[in-house]
Amino acid sequence: MTSPAPLAPAYQEYLDQLLAAKVLIATGVQGVYGKGKAFEDVLQGFDRYVTEMGKDQNATELRFPPVITRKNFEASDYLKSFPHLAGTVHSFNGTERDHVHLLSLLESGGDWTTHFHSTDVVLTPAACYPVYPTVTGTLPEGGRLFDVMSYCFRHEPSVDPARMQIFRMHEYVRVGSPDDVRRFRDLWLERGLAMLAAVGLDAHDEVANDPFFGRAGKMLAVNQRDQALKFELVTPICSTESLTAVVSCNYHQDHFGDVFKIRQHDGSVAHTACVGFGLERITLALFKKHGFDFAAWPAQARKILGV
Amino acid sequence: MTSPAPLAPAYQEYLDQLLAAKVLIATGVQGVYGKGKAFEDVLQGFDRYVTEMGKDQNATELRFPPVITRKNFEASDYLKSFPHLAGTVHSFNGTERDHVHLLSLLESGGDWTTHFHSTDVVLTPAACYPVYPTVTGTLPEGGRLFDVMSYCFRHEPSVDPARMQIFRMHEYVRVGSPDDVRRFRDLWLERGLAMLAAVGLDAHDEVANDPFFGRAGKMLAVNQRDQALKFELVTPICSTESLTAVVSCNYHQDHFGDVFKIRQHDGSVAHTACVGFGLERITLALFKKHGFDFAAWPAQARKILGV
Repeated sequence: MTSPAPLAPAYQEYLDQLLAAKVLIATGVQGVYGKGKAFEDVLQGFDRYVTEMGKDQNATELRFPPVITRKNFEASDYLKSFPHLAGTVHSFNGTERDHVHLLSLLESGGDWTTHFHSTDVVLTPAACYPVYPTVTGTLPEGGRLFDVMSYCFRHEPSVDPARMQIFRMHEYVRVGSPDDVRRFRDLWLERGLAMLAAVGLDAHDEVANDPFFGRAGKMLAVNQRDQALKFELVTPICSTESLTAVVSCNYHQDHFGDVFKIRQHDGSVAHTACVGFGLERITLALFKKHGFDFAAWPAQARKILGV
Repeated sequence: MTSPAPLAPAYQEYLDQLLAAKVLIATGVQGVYGKGKAFEDVLQGFDRYVTEMGKDQNATELRFPPVITRKNFEASDYLKSFPHLAGTVHSFNGTERDHVHLLSLLESGGDWTTHFHSTDVVLTPAACYPVYPTVTGTLPEGGRLFDVMSYCFRHEPSVDPARMQIFRMHEYVRVGSPDDVRRFRDLWLERGLAMLAAVGLDAHDEVANDPFFGRAGKMLAVNQRDQALKFELVTPICSTESLTAVVSCNYHQDHFGDVFKIRQHDGSVAHTACVGFGLERITLALFKKHGFDFAAWPAQARKILGV
């Protein structure tokens, strides 16, 4: 979803309110914020809710840090589709002499980062990415289900408070047969809508596409929509006309199964799908809908979120 | 603290146990692990404990993402002291033609990251770094206290499971007069020891130094020790002879106050100090001490941690 220019004043207005209420803390870079206690309490409350609502699913809970290995990132084909969103991590391995030069560049306003070279890690692009390499091999019958949550990075500075460069995504990830995976997606589309409704958010589902890079990417987006591989649950945040995706369901077909050599119990390539709850976006939608005074929030939302 | 080679077998042995128990999940890069539910439950339990134990201090709770702004990072002088530990974040801003070239480098095993250039953010080096720029200006009487927790990055791949490249640090950060700050440090050294004892860890405090870069860094380290500006609480993890720092108290004198123009109520430059709890290290120390079966853990530790 792009950020149409006519919405900029609406974005700025809500951002200003969030900063004035110290719900968000400015850092000087668009899309990178500190969070006050109220924001974190709501976010952690919804995070727990996602885990609770999946308890009947017997998911394996894993937590990964905000970086993944460069090797798995390269294998994932992310660079083909989303080079413009990726963040690589670079480090300094130079000598003391190099260090002197680095500091002279820093002093003179030159580009000291030229002394930094790529490491073995990149920032996590989506919470499900580190899961697939861990399930290489043959799955048990019925496949597997994972519950993951991590910070994700996407390089898209924006005045829209809901378009952060670094944010948390809580996902369920299903790995199994095409049937397993489609049933999982249908279940969570419905459950996601019910969860948003339970905390007082009006949402509906839409067929969507990922923000693929370039002209070839436009075709990929059309193809993804034609096959209805991506659904989003959308709700108003800064605008009641241009809605914001707060939950996203992606069916990857056999892409990750093929790349990371994951086999179904019968030996065929595994299919995968994920449902991701955008925790910062849901939190922003809740503050926008219910205001900054928890006392005025609907009782059910307060109970679910523990605020 | 360096990782002496004779300890490598002890590190590998504990790491193998952690991986076999699925407490940690290998990613293929040293010092970057997924965490199983048992690990996270203990870590989150200690994280809550740190917040609870500071409730009487009336700290402002802030949560920052795992990146800070490059501008503030540059101002902090981190590059002078620890260039070898820093992680800069780079992104692709090229054309479709650049993208084709990038993909051809990826395909041929070339260095595609040469298409990536530094962004406005770097990975957070310590949880307290994003706090100082937010308190620019004159402090209220008595100064301020913050409770922060975030992922931190340090580029030091190691077989030692307690030397992760990316890990969480929960800190209290005191900003005020030299007296305020020294009292804060003394309080938390004592409280930190009591907290570790309460969960069954034998620890003691030691004067310590940061891992400054290069020959000039050796002098900075000696100076830091001579002035007793850094204390660590150390406990056995992989070795009972070479102990591991799990809590660190740093007194920065007027460094951050000077850099970020923070003034005491009387107009003089503010002093700062922080106490940081290394959440992954404390968790690793607990599993090493009490084993992988929560039923066998001391009752008090289980109660405090909620496991």
